[in-house]
Amino acid sequence: MSDQDLRVGLIGAGMMGSDHARRIHERVSGARLVAVGDPDADRARAAVEGIPGARAETDPIGVIGASDVDAVVIASPGPVHEPLLLAAVERGIPVLCEKPLTPDSKSSLRVVQAEADRGRKLVQVGFMRRFDPEFLDLKALLDDSELGEPLLLHCAHRNAAHPPGFTTNMLINDSVVHEFDTTRWLLGDELTAVSVRQQGLVRSDDAGIPQIVTIETARGVLVDVEIFVHCRFGYQVRCEAVCEHGTATVGGDTGMRTHTAGRWGGQVTADFRPRFRAAFDAEFQRWAHAAREGGIDGASAWDGYAAAAACEAGVQAQETGQRAEISLAARPGIYD
Amino acid sequence: MSDQDLRVGLIGAGMMGSDHARRIHERVSGARLVAVGDPDADRARAAVEGIPGARAETDPIGVIGASDVDAVVIASPGPVHEPLLLAAVERGIPVLCEKPLTPDSKSSLRVVQAEADRGRKLVQVGFMRRFDPEFLDLKALLDDSELGEPLLLHCAHRNAAHPPGFTTNMLINDSVVHEFDTTRWLLGDELTAVSVRQQGLVRSDDAGIPQIVTIETARGVLVDVEIFVHCRFGYQVRCEAVCEHGTATVGGDTGMRTHTAGRWGGQVTADFRPRFRAAFDAEFQRWAHAAREGGIDGASAWDGYAAAAACEAGVQAQETGQRAEISLAARPGIYD
Amino acid sequence: MSDQDLRVGLIGAGMMGSDHARRIHERVSGARLVAVGDPDADRARAAVEGIPGARAETDPIGVIGASDVDAVVIASPGPVHEPLLLAAVERGIPVLCEKPLTPDSKSSLRVVQAEADRGRKLVQVGFMRRFDPEFLDLKALLDDSELGEPLLLHCAHRNAAHPPGFTTNMLINDSVVHEFDTTRWLLGDELTAVSVRQQGLVRSDDAGIPQIVTIETARGVLVDVEIFVHCRFGYQVRCEAVCEHGTATVGGDTGMRTHTAGRWGGQVTADFRPRFRAAFDAEFQRWAHAAREGGIDGASAWDGYAAAAACEAGVQAQETGQRAEISLAARPGIYD
Amino acid sequence: MSDQDLRVGLIGAGMMGSDHARRIHERVSGARLVAVGDPDADRARAAVEGIPGARAETDPIGVIGASDVDAVVIASPGPVHEPLLLAAVERGIPVLCEKPLTPDSKSSLRVVQAEADRGRKLVQVGFMRRFDPEFLDLKALLDDSELGEPLLLHCAHRNAAHPPGFTTNMLINDSVVHEFDTTRWLLGDELTAVSVRQQGLVRSDDAGIPQIVTIETARGVLVDVEIFVHCRFGYQVRCEAVCEHGTATVGGDTGMRTHTAGRWGGQVTADFRPRFRAAFDAEFQRWAHAAREGGIDGASAWDGYAAAAACEAGVQAQETGQRAEISLAARPGIYD
Repeated sequence: MSDQDLRVGLIGAGMMGSDHARRIHERVSGARLVAVGDPDADRARAAVEGIPGARAETDPIGVIGASDVDAVVIASPGPVHEPLLLAAVERGIPVLCEKPLTPDSKSSLRVVQAEADRGRKLVQVGFMRRFDPEFLDLKALLDDSELGEPLLLHCAHRNAAHPPGFTTNMLINDSVVHEFDTTRWLLGDELTAVSVRQQGLVRSDDAGIPQIVTIETARGVLVDVEIFVHCRFGYQVRCEAVCEHGTATVGGDTGMRTHTAGRWGGQVTADFRPRFRAAFDAEFQRWAHAAREGGIDGASAWDGYAAAAACEAGVQAQETGQRAEISLAARPGIYD
Repeated sequence: MSDQDLRVGLIGAGMMGSDHARRIHERVSGARLVAVGDPDADRARAAVEGIPGARAETDPIGVIGASDVDAVVIASPGPVHEPLLLAAVERGIPVLCEKPLTPDSKSSLRVVQAEADRGRKLVQVGFMRRFDPEFLDLKALLDDSELGEPLLLHCAHRNAAHPPGFTTNMLINDSVVHEFDTTRWLLGDELTAVSVRQQGLVRSDDAGIPQIVTIETARGVLVDVEIFVHCRFGYQVRCEAVCEHGTATVGGDTGMRTHTAGRWGGQVTADFRPRFRAAFDAEFQRWAHAAREGGIDGASAWDGYAAAAACEAGVQAQETGQRAEISLAARPGIYD
Repeated sequence: MSDQDLRVGLIGAGMMGSDHARRIHERVSGARLVAVGDPDADRARAAVEGIPGARAETDPIGVIGASDVDAVVIASPGPVHEPLLLAAVERGIPVLCEKPLTPDSKSSLRVVQAEADRGRKLVQVGFMRRFDPEFLDLKALLDDSELGEPLLLHCAHRNAAHPPGFTTNMLINDSVVHEFDTTRWLLGDELTAVSVRQQGLVRSDDAGIPQIVTIETARGVLVDVEIFVHCRFGYQVRCEAVCEHGTATVGGDTGMRTHTAGRWGGQVTADFRPRFRAAFDAEFQRWAHAAREGGIDGASAWDGYAAAAACEAGVQAQETGQRAEISLAARPGIYD
Repeated sequence: MSDQDLRVGLIGAGMMGSDHARRIHERVSGARLVAVGDPDADRARAAVEGIPGARAETDPIGVIGASDVDAVVIASPGPVHEPLLLAAVERGIPVLCEKPLTPDSKSSLRVVQAEADRGRKLVQVGFMRRFDPEFLDLKALLDDSELGEPLLLHCAHRNAAHPPGFTTNMLINDSVVHEFDTTRWLLGDELTAVSVRQQGLVRSDDAGIPQIVTIETARGVLVDVEIFVHCRFGYQVRCEAVCEHGTATVGGDTGMRTHTAGRWGGQVTADFRPRFRAAFDAEFQRWAHAAREGGIDGASAWDGYAAAAACEAGVQAQETGQRAEISLAARPGIYD
């Protein structure tokens, strides 16, 4: 890996774009936000606020072409993606583009063609479920063939409520699009046909009514997706793979669960590193932020001292079989 | 936050130290590893391999004093911590020190005193459970007082197997030390006494026999800890808080679960951002690493195109009520 | 209720019939098996073995007409049900008939008509899920309207393996027939249409391939049923009701679970009676069987004594704050 | 087993006694309640109301001596048990006695001695957990030694609220007495010592404060019991067995769960009979009660007809690949 930080330009300073700006600045190692481009100058400025070295621009294409931009994140609305993607491909810099790639398959194919002409993959689409720990567990299980061939997927995709203006078509384009990708990725298979069935209790608010989308794949797997964007109770993305020798479910609130040969359940972590890896990462990240300000953000030396005193009492209790009392010195004021 | 990356010196290139070197290099934003100090030159060299700009040294104290070191991570054995900590405090730079702070309370108190004399907190102890998502959920619940006063904690701390040479005292000093800190942190309370009871089936391997450690706190909470470093089935850290109006358990393999007013269960995520925050972070981190090499690491433009084609068929199926077939263009070779 | 036991005649001494014979004899209060009728005399004799007062017959119709038979259980194959049912209805005695009522709707309608002509309900069909604790919980929840209108049901019906000779049509007639009844009963709604979709990986063994059956109801609820009679891992019957304000699932190995307003989970039992009702029932049933033989079948007087001794020590420990030892008298030989 | 019903006399018509009277009458096969004895004539009368053939008496000893009483259930308060038990033992008839056997170990030992003198076990103590499906699963697992030797038990025994007048000693005598028996039964081991530790937040209501009771067994197993009779959220009885090769927990709301070799989880039922055994039993019991009144209590012939019509449509859908409509004949009025 190069010694230098990746200098990232971000296009689109809406909700997703602003989130991504903070993410790049605060939680991504080896990357640095240098520019945010959004036609709305106020939004662009808000997105770079508090991020040293990042500038706001109103011309997205200018960001893509800037000499200090090594790579681009596109978080603007889908209809404007195509020219941005083509510009990045032409310049030969990597792109991370929020879904959809573009709003229709013809324009998507033009992007594919431009990239293929250039001869290397530069465009990544933001199907983030491929990075979700539970979906990764499911993918690994299916790839290992431990459960045999997958036969069916049962999916549910539920939002507490949908935003105003959400239409029935958006159920497919904005929501089920994730299951389209998840299916292709999990199964390593192509989709061949889709059917949609609407729940029958039609109300005035069509988009809020659950629909069942059935997907067929080239190898013959059947996938059903419940899409319900007004389920009220919360957000839930669930996928159950039914295979020849058992089933596996993710998104059911309890980690991946399998049903195999007489048993249901999940895996126990082997040792402390996988169990607490996220904790270690967060600890170091927060400490690094605090240390840049000259301080700490976690258990203090006083906490270390108190633990040492308790350990001494613990060992004494262990050795004597008696209750051992713990007493601490007076606590210096800096620990209040 | 400063514009510059935090330049980190790492002391100790054993298993933990090496892990932390990769962590700082690959997953911590705003920090950069500049030196690893370990008396064993080979280990130090191995730890910096593949990390541009990081040098190996054999004098830990030299690392702490180096002009290009802004902060220090200490991952060397506990008995050598004290002089390292005192050197860092004297230089006034932040430290993240793996537990224990030092092996006994007297030496710990000297570190506390040195820091207090200096007037600001510089030393953080690596009690990483304070950063674990489940423990943070439990802490938030207790702080909110939703369940009333905590009355009891039931803890279990289990390892599949213990390393050779593990002694009974290490059950306390290396293992239960985490519960000592967890208890203080979760309850915001000090420990006042400890008792230890050994399971009675004594075998030759004493350290492998479970013990029950009972901790008392200043406010009267009773804490029992099962410490069992040879449970064989895997690694498990569990904590159940019994409060006036209900209980909450973490580490039981299914996220935090509560028992309150007639119901047991957990929380449903409100929207996609908390649900997929870790996925977004991982996606961006892996993309940034790949982009520094000029490529991508995730769903490709072809995946975006295939999803767009499926969406078109989906909308058609929705509007016609008929099954709609999906057909894709020929796939360019770069996507194979 | 009458003072006298119900004298039951059982038709059909196959696997189900024999099970039911033991059930009536051993676990049903207020009923007594008096006759088993099966054309296969050996099977009939085997079914009444060890059941005092029960005789074996080879003429099923004769059992229905016997003067000492107050009610009939029909557990013979579906194709012979109709004349048996009509005979019982004509005699005016209650029937519990294993499903199917009859193998086709025309003959079923003739039974319905005969019963209606007689003016009272005498025939019960053995849809036993209506008596399953979890399904009863789900039914109660839906009836309470706590979750609003039901919109969808997702069902899975899985067998480890199917018997030889099982055909694709039997997937519907023998298996999904339960979901047809469950849907009608849970929703209080009539079925209006059915569709079936076969998983595409066709193998030589058609019946072993999962199919998706979609059911529509008069009020517009969509029901999908995965029927998979060769899932290998075990037996599973699951039903998730998706309602306007939340979901509820039964058959998922953990009791009924709901997702409502930010929370998933289940109910906590209010007191010991519902929690241990099944235990009390089993205790009394087994004690009654043992007592008829002049003995007991459970904790003995010695167990009662040992518990009393432990309680005394417990109270002493409580009052003194000290460990109290328990010592027992010599145990008489009858307790060995 | 004898051909005749067991004729049961019940002593004590309080809450438990009345429950048991209904139980014997409605849900126990082969037993018949003939008399209820309670010094309070009104209570005795209330307990036999609606139970044909059962009389109320005010002299408990008279019930035990009655010539039509084959066996006795004792549900009166503990202090009066001894003479009742001795009378039954003297008459040589089986007894099912609610716990405690007697209130102290000396009197318990007299009962044991009387029974031993008579030479056969006649007295059963109502430790009903021994009949609870989950505890039976745990017992079977421990007996199979699948998890190796048990080392520890962690128990929790929680009531939503305690009755007025509940004292600290009753925590032991009325509540933990169950854990004393459960421990002896699960482990097949004797108890040797008890210690009690009180949670420190002392309030005016002592009995409502949780206590930790530690039990030692002859083989060296340590058992800790949280007894908390005012936990507010509901009733919970939990037991986790920590063994050499894994753990198993019951009472955690989700059936027995184990942690073994890298996996946590539970068992999947092998086929429909164990899964629906309780449903079949309930179905037959309720049908028998209804049939004694000449009717049914479950799915009707109309339900059987509707299922047959749905099956016909299902098979048609399966064979044609098309949606098939279901239409029913007019429903006769008796099914409304």
